[in-house]
Amino acid sequence: MGSIENFMELSISELKEHDQRLQEKYNGYKSQNLNLDMSRGKPCQEQLDLSNGLLDSLKSNEDYRGMDGTDYRNYGGLDGIPEAKELFSQVLEVSTKEIIIGGNSSLNMMYDTIARAMLHGVYRSESPWGKLPVVKFLCPSPGYDRHFAICELFNIEMITIDMLSSGPDMDMIEKLVSEDDSIKGIWCVPKYSNPDGITYSDQTVERLAQMKTKATDFRIFWDNAYTVHHLTEHEDQLKDIFTACKSAGNPHRVFMFSSTSKITFPGSGVAMMAASEENLDFIRRQLSIQTIGPDKINQLRHVRFLKDMNHLKKHMEKHAEIIKPKFEIVLNKLESELGSKNIASWNKPNGGYFISLNTLNGCARDIVNMAAEVGVKLTQAGATYPYGKDPRDRNIRIAPTFPSMAELEKAIEVLCLCVQLVSIKKILAEKE
Amino acid sequence: MGSIENFMELSISELKEHDQRLQEKYNGYKSQNLNLDMSRGKPCQEQLDLSNGLLDSLKSNEDYRGMDGTDYRNYGGLDGIPEAKELFSQVLEVSTKEIIIGGNSSLNMMYDTIARAMLHGVYRSESPWGKLPVVKFLCPSPGYDRHFAICELFNIEMITIDMLSSGPDMDMIEKLVSEDDSIKGIWCVPKYSNPDGITYSDQTVERLAQMKTKATDFRIFWDNAYTVHHLTEHEDQLKDIFTACKSAGNPHRVFMFSSTSKITFPGSGVAMMAASEENLDFIRRQLSIQTIGPDKINQLRHVRFLKDMNHLKKHMEKHAEIIKPKFEIVLNKLESELGSKNIASWNKPNGGYFISLNTLNGCARDIVNMAAEVGVKLTQAGATYPYGKDPRDRNIRIAPTFPSMAELEKAIEVLCLCVQLVSIKKILAEKE
Repeated sequence: MGSIENFMELSISELKEHDQRLQEKYNGYKSQNLNLDMSRGKPCQEQLDLSNGLLDSLKSNEDYRGMDGTDYRNYGGLDGIPEAKELFSQVLEVSTKEIIIGGNSSLNMMYDTIARAMLHGVYRSESPWGKLPVVKFLCPSPGYDRHFAICELFNIEMITIDMLSSGPDMDMIEKLVSEDDSIKGIWCVPKYSNPDGITYSDQTVERLAQMKTKATDFRIFWDNAYTVHHLTEHEDQLKDIFTACKSAGNPHRVFMFSSTSKITFPGSGVAMMAASEENLDFIRRQLSIQTIGPDKINQLRHVRFLKDMNHLKKHMEKHAEIIKPKFEIVLNKLESELGSKNIASWNKPNGGYFISLNTLNGCARDIVNMAAEVGVKLTQAGATYPYGKDPRDRNIRIAPTFPSMAELEKAIEVLCLCVQLVSIKKILAEKE
Repeated sequence: MGSIENFMELSISELKEHDQRLQEKYNGYKSQNLNLDMSRGKPCQEQLDLSNGLLDSLKSNEDYRGMDGTDYRNYGGLDGIPEAKELFSQVLEVSTKEIIIGGNSSLNMMYDTIARAMLHGVYRSESPWGKLPVVKFLCPSPGYDRHFAICELFNIEMITIDMLSSGPDMDMIEKLVSEDDSIKGIWCVPKYSNPDGITYSDQTVERLAQMKTKATDFRIFWDNAYTVHHLTEHEDQLKDIFTACKSAGNPHRVFMFSSTSKITFPGSGVAMMAASEENLDFIRRQLSIQTIGPDKINQLRHVRFLKDMNHLKKHMEKHAEIIKPKFEIVLNKLESELGSKNIASWNKPNGGYFISLNTLNGCARDIVNMAAEVGVKLTQAGATYPYGKDPRDRNIRIAPTFPSMAELEKAIEVLCLCVQLVSIKKILAEKE
């Protein structure tokens, strides 16, 4: 393909000539009947195999008692077993009194937290959120589509906030929350964010903790999904928002969530939630109506298997060993195919599960469709924005963990081809 | 104590004399520092031991794939694994398309079902229930306190319906539902009911299926918690309400719930819900926002351990062997202490988890308090009625499964003593 450089500097005829060569290549893929799926942020089989020990981690079939002799097979234990609180409070850097250990899904815990707030408000709310004429949430975007789907289900109005390299646009956030008391919350994936891989700067965390909110019951939904999910030796450090909020006099501002879904088994992990003791007391009152308690045996399995923070960190290094090469294939391919062409940019995350690709404005949807036509499935364009609408139609989320290396290489080749084809079309349309 | 017979035929002086003897005996218990708990409908350790095989039921730590090769460790499978649907659809006598397999708590499934109905209504609702000025539920009572607690949390007005020996008072129910379209549902524990141990008659089931309801989106919450929980060789037969509703032209009327909480482990079981395909489709749309899926590995564990209906039935016979003697101790003691005194009546259930004791009107609360004072904890009086208020203050729920035989014997002795003391006080007050 020669050494095509900056597309913006090519003449119309050069662009057309290049387009023809790319089109031939694209037609070649059509005949290959590809069936590649790059859409799912799922661990691959090799990663899951790392946790097979979880399946027989109980020392015997008589290993079902807690430290204090409690029989974990029976009813009870509304908010999790002490052993799990001990371990996971270290992961989330909170005290054992500030954590609840739940079932297998942190998404479900977030959903329930919103549902409870709609029904009863949160600690010290003047009214259930559902009784208010309008409830709004701030949604740093691109972000996690399932957060946005929860808001949509509960009719919570979403306000898109731009993501900067330091995290969400704090100037915008501070302005909005200080003026509008119907803004009750914000969704954050503060470390190795989905999909940008950005870790919020210390200043961003501080500003979130300190900002004045017109709503007295404003809550930060801090989805710390990737807190121990490093990819490289350069581990991002996230400032502790709990302490920051306490220091700022806003001790009840944060609901923190996490899970072992991408530590052990995505379907059979353990989810957790951290918040101030007052927040948790308020939540437990409703939780006690909802359920008699989570699966304590699975919590015990996790404690037996993960052991302690040190062991957990070593376990996460094994994950990184498996998926780092996959991220590298994607990044190398993006660099070699698109690196100097001035038609796309992307992040190089130090952790997490995604690579976020930004194309020229107005191109993402066409690129995703074009890739799909030759059998390469990408996350739907727009999915990373509230209501599925990317205002610049430019963001594509790449999930490198699940496919094999060979599949990845092929899929990214196709993606890069489609990025070029759609970009040329757009540049030509603007030139003509 | 001699052969005291019918209290109603004793003279004042005979009653007072008897009262003094009983009071001395009661004072004797005071010094024994008892600490007995009869309040919890929990399986005992020997029962839990029956299912220890569940802890290592996966054939190896490579046994995590479904029939079609699906890796159950990973995300996915919103409504349960096919193997579990296959097994538990037989337990609930529905098709595999009419069942959803969830997490560890059927209470949570019921809670979620009510929560979803409040937010979005049910299939073919004209409005979310939560948007209506008032929503009412029929509550056959005595009943299960946790059902009533859910209604209370969601501000659903509860109407108490008397329980007859054939099930809830259908004359009353038919009248109410035909007149009031704010009555959206009814809670039923149709087999070995909590706490009466009553199984609804065929006619009751038919009438529930056929009755005309003014609310077009009326639902029966059919908590089939004890469907395979027989105590004796005389197994009650419950008519299949699903088929009855279909025949009656009301195929969407039933939400059925059950779980393995009292088959395997109460804290780590598998919950399920059955309903028409249209109902389930409607539910799945919201469920897909709430969670990515239940713990499929635990579902697989259950299928491996319980194997098939035949094996499951044999497993339940072992439960019965353990708890039948406990029910007998209670029943024998009630008979020998209260049998002919005309101050209390009770059921002799063929299955389930409770014995329901009815005292003279206005006595239950005092009896429970009096027993508590000497260290015998019973379920709070009133708990079996909506809002915790037994209109006749007479129902006491006895949960025989958890305590040891020796504890049970002692606790029922104390209970019978308190029943007599409080009854004498009441009879004397009426005579004087």
